[in-house]
Amino acid sequence: MYNYKLTIQYEGTKYKGWQRLNTTDKTIQGKIEAVLSQLLDTEILIIGSGRTDAGVHAYGQIANFFSKKPLHPDIIKDYLYQYLPKDIMVTEVVSVDERFHARYNVKDKCYIYKVNNNPHHHVFDRKMVLHVPEQLDLGLMRKAATKFMGTHDFKSFSTMRSKKKSTIKTLDDVRIEEKDGYLSFIFIGEGFLYNMIRIIVGTLLEVGRGNLTPADIETIFEKKQRQSAGPTIPPHGLYLMHVHYK
Amino acid sequence: MYNYKLTIQYEGTKYKGWQRLNTTDKTIQGKIEAVLSQLLDTEILIIGSGRTDAGVHAYGQIANFFSKKPLHPDIIKDYLYQYLPKDIMVTEVVSVDERFHARYNVKDKCYIYKVNNNPHHHVFDRKMVLHVPEQLDLGLMRKAATKFMGTHDFKSFSTMRSKKKSTIKTLDDVRIEEKDGYLSFIFIGEGFLYNMIRIIVGTLLEVGRGNLTPADIETIFEKKQRQSAGPTIPPHGLYLMHVHYK
Repeated sequence: MYNYKLTIQYEGTKYKGWQRLNTTDKTIQGKIEAVLSQLLDTEILIIGSGRTDAGVHAYGQIANFFSKKPLHPDIIKDYLYQYLPKDIMVTEVVSVDERFHARYNVKDKCYIYKVNNNPHHHVFDRKMVLHVPEQLDLGLMRKAATKFMGTHDFKSFSTMRSKKKSTIKTLDDVRIEEKDGYLSFIFIGEGFLYNMIRIIVGTLLEVGRGNLTPADIETIFEKKQRQSAGPTIPPHGLYLMHVHYK
Repeated sequence: MYNYKLTIQYEGTKYKGWQRLNTTDKTIQGKIEAVLSQLLDTEILIIGSGRTDAGVHAYGQIANFFSKKPLHPDIIKDYLYQYLPKDIMVTEVVSVDERFHARYNVKDKCYIYKVNNNPHHHVFDRKMVLHVPEQLDLGLMRKAATKFMGTHDFKSFSTMRSKKKSTIKTLDDVRIEEKDGYLSFIFIGEGFLYNMIRIIVGTLLEVGRGNLTPADIETIFEKKQRQSAGPTIPPHGLYLMHVHYK
């Protein structure tokens, strides 16, 4: 068996997220599998590093797939470039060890949520960043952001789909960068729960608006219920930046 | 009468261009006039610095309009921000002398046509720049670009709509900047004919591909017929950057 690792960039606007749901839904995984199955003339399933929600974008999603037939990585890359829609691009294909697994071997992932905090939205990027016109207290948001670092039960900060899954996760970095009124909320961690980043940023924005204090974050963690945290903000400001492996 | 000058930014993708054609077509001018007429409770007509074609964008289109009622410019700006669609934004409103005319008083305009000349398109800007994957000879294109500077009869480089209008225009600057495989074709001049920039860039790209030589530009000027020049390339890479006044 030959194992190939793909690096994938996509604009998620028109898709129901990464994960293939059924044959009729438009998903990133589904589109890539269809093209690879056509190239290799057999059903190909790809393993992603993890899901991204509907409307979320990626600069460096990672996936792998197995093929019985050996193929030069450039042949795979060129074929995908030719047949994938223009909002999905496989930017790199490499031949990897048979033991490489895009989900199990993840060391950490980096996500960025982008906010335009200027009084007016911007005509040319309005679909790719969240516009928050109100004045935000960046100092308070930064103080609150540190509360998310380390290992916590993030139950309050996720929309549960399964009750069996652990909600304990470790974040290695949570920080906010600012430039020209644009905020980048940067998250680095091994794994994230469903909607977790959108709820954390939604909560941090509430701190910035003065509706919550940094100390409230601890209370929200303790409550372990979704409704105590801030809102799930829209997906269009969220980007999976890169995935690192062990 | 009170005269107001507007600076307008727009993503032209969804519009039939700047100029109002009739009441049902989606045009930038039509949208702005509708909102101003609502604000002032009377029919307002605006005078643009000139047309932009369907699908062309602007960072700094200029227009003016007259009102019998005096209004604070900020009131006008805020009202337009509130009621215009998100892909059109009036970024500045200033009260100007009654003699100011957005079309007659133009000193020069700057347009930029953006081309991504990397082998692959880019997922996140594919709708806002033209992708040209072939290798282009930038030196030859730059040599050819200088041939457009100065005063010429640009008949070969325009799609004629009226036979009465003069096709003689003066370009003060035509140059090509390059960064990371992206080309910006920069044009500065007092006025431009219909489709003129898209045909000139289309012709320069033919020079870059080796299908035309810089010397051919002179021959095309002499022929004074549209079919001797290169193709009219798509509008989505074209931006009206700014308009300067005397």
